[in-house]
Amino acid sequence: MSYNKTPSITAETINPKVKIFSYEPCGEIVRRAERLQQEMDENPDSLPFPEIIHCNLGNPQVLGQRPVTFFREVLSLCDNPALLDREEARALFSACAIKRARKIVNSIPGKETGGYTNSQGVKSLRQAVADGISARDGYPSKPDDIFLTDGASAAVNMMLQILIRSHEDGILCPLPEYPLYSASIILHGGTMVPYNLTEDRGWGLEIFEVKRCLEEARSAGLTVRAMVVINPGNPTGQVMSITNQEEIVEFCRKEGLVILADEVYQENVYVENKRFHSFKKVARSLGYDEKDLSIVSFHSVSMGFCGESGRRGGYMEITGFGDDVKGEIYKLASVTICPNIAGQILTSLIMDPPKLGNESFESFEAEKERIHSSFWKRAKTLGKAFSSLEGVSCNNIEGALYIFPRLHLPSLAIKAAKREGVSPDVFYTHRLLDATGIAVVPGSGFHQVSGTIHIRCTILPDEDKIAAMIPRLKGFHESFMNEFRGSEPYMNDLRR
Amino acid sequence: MSYNKTPSITAETINPKVKIFSYEPCGEIVRRAERLQQEMDENPDSLPFPEIIHCNLGNPQVLGQRPVTFFREVLSLCDNPALLDREEARALFSACAIKRARKIVNSIPGKETGGYTNSQGVKSLRQAVADGISARDGYPSKPDDIFLTDGASAAVNMMLQILIRSHEDGILCPLPEYPLYSASIILHGGTMVPYNLTEDRGWGLEIFEVKRCLEEARSAGLTVRAMVVINPGNPTGQVMSITNQEEIVEFCRKEGLVILADEVYQENVYVENKRFHSFKKVARSLGYDEKDLSIVSFHSVSMGFCGESGRRGGYMEITGFGDDVKGEIYKLASVTICPNIAGQILTSLIMDPPKLGNESFESFEAEKERIHSSFWKRAKTLGKAFSSLEGVSCNNIEGALYIFPRLHLPSLAIKAAKREGVSPDVFYTHRLLDATGIAVVPGSGFHQVSGTIHIRCTILPDEDKIAAMIPRLKGFHESFMNEFRGSEPYMNDLRR
Repeated sequence: MSYNKTPSITAETINPKVKIFSYEPCGEIVRRAERLQQEMDENPDSLPFPEIIHCNLGNPQVLGQRPVTFFREVLSLCDNPALLDREEARALFSACAIKRARKIVNSIPGKETGGYTNSQGVKSLRQAVADGISARDGYPSKPDDIFLTDGASAAVNMMLQILIRSHEDGILCPLPEYPLYSASIILHGGTMVPYNLTEDRGWGLEIFEVKRCLEEARSAGLTVRAMVVINPGNPTGQVMSITNQEEIVEFCRKEGLVILADEVYQENVYVENKRFHSFKKVARSLGYDEKDLSIVSFHSVSMGFCGESGRRGGYMEITGFGDDVKGEIYKLASVTICPNIAGQILTSLIMDPPKLGNESFESFEAEKERIHSSFWKRAKTLGKAFSSLEGVSCNNIEGALYIFPRLHLPSLAIKAAKREGVSPDVFYTHRLLDATGIAVVPGSGFHQVSGTIHIRCTILPDEDKIAAMIPRLKGFHESFMNEFRGSEPYMNDLRR
Repeated sequence: MSYNKTPSITAETINPKVKIFSYEPCGEIVRRAERLQQEMDENPDSLPFPEIIHCNLGNPQVLGQRPVTFFREVLSLCDNPALLDREEARALFSACAIKRARKIVNSIPGKETGGYTNSQGVKSLRQAVADGISARDGYPSKPDDIFLTDGASAAVNMMLQILIRSHEDGILCPLPEYPLYSASIILHGGTMVPYNLTEDRGWGLEIFEVKRCLEEARSAGLTVRAMVVINPGNPTGQVMSITNQEEIVEFCRKEGLVILADEVYQENVYVENKRFHSFKKVARSLGYDEKDLSIVSFHSVSMGFCGESGRRGGYMEITGFGDDVKGEIYKLASVTICPNIAGQILTSLIMDPPKLGNESFESFEAEKERIHSSFWKRAKTLGKAFSSLEGVSCNNIEGALYIFPRLHLPSLAIKAAKREGVSPDVFYTHRLLDATGIAVVPGSGFHQVSGTIHIRCTILPDEDKIAAMIPRLKGFHESFMNEFRGSEPYMNDLRR
C-alpha cells in the first residue's frame, strides 16, 4: 500500500518508545498460534495435533478453569438489578448472592451499575477491599488508600507514570521479569535498573545483588525511585521468605525507595513451608508506618482461584504518600474517568468472599479448595515432566502459575537457531508449537540472564489437558534433541 | 506527615507532566460536591437544597436514565452462562437475549467470559462492530481494523501515545475542547495546537481558522500529526454539516494529517436538519480510500441511548495505516492485555442491536425512542431556561449531551472572583453548587476562549429533576446578579 506524500504515519514515524519494547506473552507466539488455528479451522487434519494449548498466558478460564459460582451469580445480578425483585430469580441464584448483589447495588450512588463511578472506584467497594486487607494483614487499611483499577497492569502503568520524570529516573526490577515492567518503564521514558534473581538458589532475591545494582545505577547518575518485587514470582514461581521480605523493607526504607509490590499471586502459594505476607504487613510488623516508607501493593481478580482475567479488575493500595500525591494519582486516574464496574465488583468480592455462617460459604470454599489443590497437582505434574526431559532443569514451583525451566540445548540447535536469525529459546518454542500445538513463551521475553535458555509455561491447562500434553512434549523434546544432538556437547552456558 | 530524609515521593518530585494537566469534569467541582454530600449525610437539614445534582459529567444512569433491557439481559447471561441451559431462565430473560448471549459465549475462544481475550478484542465481537459500521456507512469495515477498548478515553490515549514522539509533535484540537485531549497530549509529551470554534456561528468549525493554526504551528517548528474533531461537539453540542466535514477531509488529506474523529455522540443528534455522518463515510463518498487518508473513529457505550458509562466499553476503527503500524498499536494494547469483556460485549450490542423480526426489536426500539425524545425535550427545556437568565446566551443544542451557555457577569462579580483567587467561571460554579446543589463545570475546564465565561451543564437529569432544578437555578442566578449588580456595567468581554 502506498501512502500520500505528506508526512504520514508509518512504523518509522510513530513514537519510538512504542517500537522499542516487547511484550512476548501476547507477541509472536500468539500470532504464530493464530495462524496455526486458522489452518486447523480450514483443514482440521492438516496439523499433527488435535488442538492448540495456550500455555503462554496465565489465562485460567481459557484453559478450562470453571468460574467460581458465587462471583458469577453476584456479577450477573448486578448487571441486571431488575432480577433482584423477581421471585423467579430465587430458583436461579443463591440467597447469599442475591443479598450481596442487593447490598452492592444499593451502595452505588444512583443505585445503578451503568454509571461512571468515582475515578478511584465506588467507595463502598473500596471499603470492602480495605476491610479484606485489614483482615488479611492484621493491620488497618483505609478505603482512601485504595484505587480500584482495570486490572493490575493498569495500576502498575499509572504508578510508573507518576514516578518517572525522565530517563534519569531508574526503577529496580527483578530479572527474569514480567515484561509489563520493562514495557511500561520504556513507554514512560524511564530507565529500568535490573537486578538478577539467583536461579540456583530457587530464584531467590539476594539483597547484596540489589544493592550492587542500586549503587551502579547511582554512580551512572540515575535517581532510583522504586523497587519492583514480584511475590510470588512471575515467571519464576518462588515465594519469598519473611526474612527476605524484611531485608527488602529495611533496604528500601534506608535507601528511600518506593516498594512496588506485585502481589497478584497472593492466593497462589502451594508449598507447606511458605505463606504469603504482604510487604505492608511485613513493614508494619517491623514497626514502620506511613512516614517511614512508601509501599504500593498491586492485586487483581485475574489469578488465584478467581481467574477472571478478562474482567480487568484489580486494586492498588497506596501507603506512605502525602494527600497531594494521592490527589495527583486521582487526577491521572480520572483521565479515563473510572475503572469498569464489573471489575470493581469482582475485586470487592475476592477481598470479601462468603464467610463462615453465610449460606454460600461451604460451596464457595469447596470450589476454591478444588481449584487450589488442582493447581498444586498440575504444578507438580508439569515440574516432574519438564525435569525428566534430557538437558532440562527446573526449580520447584512454590507459588504463582508458571514453570520456568532451563534448557541446555545441543550446540547444533544453537547454530540452527542462529541460521534462522532467532535466539535459541525462540527457535525451541516455535518448533514446539509447530510440532505439538503447545504455545509457551521464550525466556528472552522475560529478560532471562543473558546466555541462558528458558521457557515459561503456565500450569493452567486442566488436568486432562496436562495429561494429554505431556507425551506430546516428551516426544517433541526427544526428537528435537535427537535431531541436533550430533557429536558436539550441550551448550550449558552460552556465555562461554 | 513528615517523610524520611531519603529522596521520597512528594507532589514536587512526581512526573511534572501529571501535575500540569487538569481534568475538571472530575476535578475540584466533584470534590466540593462530595464534601457537601458528606455534610448532608451527617446532617440532612444543613443545606438549602434536597440533593446534589451532578451535571458535571455525561453520566446518564447516575442521573436516572434506565438501562436498556436487552443490553442488560445479554450482559447478565454472558456473566453467568450457566443460566443459558436453565429452563427457569426463560421466565426472567427474553428469548432474544438468551439467543444472543449463547451466540456470544459460543464465539469466545474457550467459551468462557472470564478469560483474557485477544488484545484487540474478541474477533467475533469485532466482526459485529465492523458489520454495524458497514451497515451504518454503506462502506465496508473490517474486524482487523477494529480495536475494542475500555471506553473511548483509553482508545484516544493509545492513539496519541502512538502519534506523539516529542514536544515538537503537534495535535490540532478544537477549543473549547473536551479536556481528555489536552490531558493526554500533555501526558505523552506532545504539543496541543488549538483551533477556535466560532461561538456566534453556532460553534462552527471554520477551515481557514484551522489552516491558520496549522501554519502558525508549522512556522514555530512543530510537526503537526493529526487533527481532532469532535462531532457532535463536546462541550458545544453542534452537529457538523456534511459540507463542513468534506472540507475537513480535503484539508487533512492535503496536509497529511490523521483525522482523529471523536464520534461518541453519534446517536445523540436531535435537530431535524442534521444527521450524523462518520468521517470515514464522508471520505469514502469523496472517493478517498485507505491510501489517501488515515482516519481513526472513536465510539463508546457510554453515551447515546445506551449510557453504560461505567462499563468502559468502546472501539476505535483504524483505517489508512499500514499493517506494521497496526502491529505496533496491537503491541501497545497488549501491555494491559485486553479490554474488559463486559465492555466488549456491550460494544458489539450497540453496533448490532435487535433487528426488525427479532422478538426484542419493538420493545428495544421503544426504549431507545423514549430515551432519545426525552433527551431532546430536556435539551430544549434547559436551553430555554438558561437563555431566559439575565446576561446569559446560549446556542441551540443540536446534539451530544451538554449545554454550554455563555455568561456575562457584572464587573463586581469578576472582582469578587479575583479577590478569592479564582476565575469568574469557577467563582460562579462554586456559588451555584453551594446554593443549589447543582454541579456544573466551569468553561475554563474546556479551555474556553480566553476572556469569555461559560459553564458546561449536562442535559441528563431526568425530566422531573430538570423541572425541580430550573427554579433553583433561576433563583440563584437572580440573587447572584442582584448581589453583584452594583452600578458598573456587565463584563461582556474580559479581554478588554
